[in-house]
Amino acid sequence: MSSSKPPTITAFAQSPDEGQGLARDMRVRWALEEVGQPYDVCLVSFAAMKEPAYRALQPFGQIPSYQEGDLILFESGSIILHIAHHHAGLLAANANVRARAITWMFAALNTVEPPIVELEQASFLKLYKACHAQLIPILEDRVRARLGELSNRLGDADWLDGAFSAGDLLMVMVLRRLDGTGIVEEYHNLGDYVARGEARPAYQRAFAAQLAVFKGKA
Amino acid sequence: MSSSKPPTITAFAQSPDEGQGLARDMRVRWALEEVGQPYDVCLVSFAAMKEPAYRALQPFGQIPSYQEGDLILFESGSIILHIAHHHAGLLAANANVRARAITWMFAALNTVEPPIVELEQASFLKLYKACHAQLIPILEDRVRARLGELSNRLGDADWLDGAFSAGDLLMVMVLRRLDGTGIVEEYHNLGDYVARGEARPAYQRAFAAQLAVFKGKA
Repeated sequence: MSSSKPPTITAFAQSPDEGQGLARDMRVRWALEEVGQPYDVCLVSFAAMKEPAYRALQPFGQIPSYQEGDLILFESGSIILHIAHHHAGLLAANANVRARAITWMFAALNTVEPPIVELEQASFLKLYKACHAQLIPILEDRVRARLGELSNRLGDADWLDGAFSAGDLLMVMVLRRLDGTGIVEEYHNLGDYVARGEARPAYQRAFAAQLAVFKGKA
Repeated sequence: MSSSKPPTITAFAQSPDEGQGLARDMRVRWALEEVGQPYDVCLVSFAAMKEPAYRALQPFGQIPSYQEGDLILFESGSIILHIAHHHAGLLAANANVRARAITWMFAALNTVEPPIVELEQASFLKLYKACHAQLIPILEDRVRARLGELSNRLGDADWLDGAFSAGDLLMVMVLRRLDGTGIVEEYHNLGDYVARGEARPAYQRAFAAQLAVFKGKA
């Protein structure tokens, strides 16, 4: 799988979160930093993402996509799993430990993230104010249900299942989407867990790289 | 990884969809049938799913969980990937083809399924009728956006990327959640795609097995 040219990922040319690192390219940047692999970044505009040329890379018109030689992937979970399968640092060698970490990758993306995205998107819905006021608390409680369950499982451990894994990487990034809502902070161990992820040198390098794009220095 | 005792999955003791096969155990049953592996089923009540004993298997109190010797997994995507890694029939041997199929697994679960689940759940929200009438069309259009993109990518192919894979299995199951809404049928190639999945002998065996639970014959 190795090639002389580093892989290329796509990212937003105009960061919608103004460099907070919440877009999904941050997840892939972090993974690549954890395994010590260089990468190139191709910045795409919102207009370009809707064009057929980009849809050939990413049929849903989203970022990131990932190109490595003639292999084209999308979906941050899939890209990170690919990276983890080919480089040490994100998944253990032991088959059972690895399978459990992959379980946490899917749990982050299919169980914890969807209600968080829904809460985000509800704030963009053009509903009458009364509807909005009714809807938001319901969606917040749906997020809290998942976070309470996650908090119970994590307990006082540093990471979800032994050593840091790609499952933790995705879970930390999913929880970060709640930045500013105060919901994660209701669960002290989850707040500490996110901080532990953000403190990793690989996270810091990835964060700086995406921030440089927003500041026009990339 | 092989052991003499077949793996055990958990499934609803009381099928909430009355045997329509929409619960996530169906996905795992189908995967096991595709690779020709026997399995045991442990039926759990809604009350038992909320108990600590079950949370030890599945921290979010959902089905399915998967036990194979001392390995415990959850998340249908993770379980299916585990099965696919250990048995031929769901992922190609070629590394690039395999990576692309895994991309479709994540796309099914993290891009296509979330707006479908949201549309489902909105019908259970206790909002005033006026709010509900406003919300549903917005959520339906969000589902249509994803289905339109998926339909464009599929085109006139039988499956999403060459031969049938675990990515198709999950995508077909995710689209089946829209049964009765008529939305999939707006995209003729997607309707045919789902029918093609449902026609597979492995699907039929899995469907019959979950239906037998509802009918009290399992």
